[in-house]
Amino acid sequence: MNIQKVGIFDSGVGGLTVAKEVKAKFPHLDIFYLGDTARLPYGDKSEETIIKYSYKNAKFLFTFGIDLLIVACNTSSSFSLPFLEKEFQFPIVGMINPGANLALKRTKNNKIGLIGTRATIRSGAYRKEIEKINKEALVFEAACPLFVPLVEEGLFEDEVTEIVARRYLKGFLEKEIDTLILGCTHYPVLIPTLKKILPDVEMISSGEATLIHLQENFHLQKENKRGVLRVFATDRSTHFKEIAEKLLGEKIDLELASI
Amino acid sequence: MNIQKVGIFDSGVGGLTVAKEVKAKFPHLDIFYLGDTARLPYGDKSEETIIKYSYKNAKFLFTFGIDLLIVACNTSSSFSLPFLEKEFQFPIVGMINPGANLALKRTKNNKIGLIGTRATIRSGAYRKEIEKINKEALVFEAACPLFVPLVEEGLFEDEVTEIVARRYLKGFLEKEIDTLILGCTHYPVLIPTLKKILPDVEMISSGEATLIHLQENFHLQKENKRGVLRVFATDRSTHFKEIAEKLLGEKIDLELASI
Repeated sequence: MNIQKVGIFDSGVGGLTVAKEVKAKFPHLDIFYLGDTARLPYGDKSEETIIKYSYKNAKFLFTFGIDLLIVACNTSSSFSLPFLEKEFQFPIVGMINPGANLALKRTKNNKIGLIGTRATIRSGAYRKEIEKINKEALVFEAACPLFVPLVEEGLFEDEVTEIVARRYLKGFLEKEIDTLILGCTHYPVLIPTLKKILPDVEMISSGEATLIHLQENFHLQKENKRGVLRVFATDRSTHFKEIAEKLLGEKIDLELASI
Repeated sequence: MNIQKVGIFDSGVGGLTVAKEVKAKFPHLDIFYLGDTARLPYGDKSEETIIKYSYKNAKFLFTFGIDLLIVACNTSSSFSLPFLEKEFQFPIVGMINPGANLALKRTKNNKIGLIGTRATIRSGAYRKEIEKINKEALVFEAACPLFVPLVEEGLFEDEVTEIVARRYLKGFLEKEIDTLILGCTHYPVLIPTLKKILPDVEMISSGEATLIHLQENFHLQKENKRGVLRVFATDRSTHFKEIAEKLLGEKIDLELASI
């Protein structure tokens, strides 16, 4: 299958960490990114509502004739994949399977930690995926509801973020995990803070896991052309543009998606 | 005008602090409360989106035949009141005018502080209202975007909340404000923390201000019957019910509003 156009959505800005990695590795792809900023965050919402929003997002990206959809939101991936796969014909990559696989590849003692939004943890999606692949693995979970607002405020390395992180991660210290899945696309910018608390633990980010998954499952050959990156948001927000440019490291022309 | 049925909406749970005060003072009223939990928070969203959601909320409450609408969300009040007043015939009470009036009544030195979401501060609604009533008054503002997530997490009195509050309120210390408008219905539970930093400052909460406004502007006589309180949310969230009951101090039968 020849993939040229990739759709990526997230509730907000976090999925751009995934878009950035995909674009860096495969610059020839045309990428259509949608942040559902009019309805974010998803992390405390119900399954029903998350599926409804995810469907709207996928339908919007569908109009660009995409060959592949990346659901770059762990909360959405935790609930909506089976539904989206029934509704659309293009292949869909979520965050759960790539993250679970990479964590199992990296762990040496089969003790894996997982952090995510309240909804992602509640879904049990990672736990089920990991247990399906390897019954021996033990998964320890912690919901970290304040991480998203702290990242949205740009407090990547901050006294407050560190105190909050110490509370959330406390339970992992005695479990001797050697691998931690960052089950939310907002979290990679927190790695320096997380490493202070869990210095010897391997951190699995959704961006890296997705890239490995794409390379192993799709024949994405580099081509000698430069694709476009179009960034849409469902709400006109100056704050989004600012953080998006910070995360991507380049200026963007933010477009409004009225869905 | 004989008021029997009151509609109240907020983006989430915060407006219940207003509903609670109204209900305590006028138990005979039938109150219909709507929390737009499927789309919360409003505080970082655009004017256009906030107006759209506010209209949907008002339209839902309209179906109960309400005699009065209270927009118990400062962010929504900052942007949507002129629009809602054009669309609906019933009287509409927002948070801005009551809060501005009460602050001006309480201040002795005409130096008033204002805290709120990023959108509320950006709107300049309080500043304009205060300057309209009293040109001598000086308004000093600070956006406090992390207060809503901290309150939603129940961290009313907490080390983290105090550090964050000290940062947000720092600018007020040298301005010698004697009155602080809590320009968000989430904030009253933070008063003990705020008082640690600004011990001699009078705190103006939306609930108290609304009650005074209702008493002065509507002939709400106590009646010898007990009204109902129906609580709706646009999303099915267990977290909402839990915090709602904590704020109200009573059990509720949460109903889903599919709008």
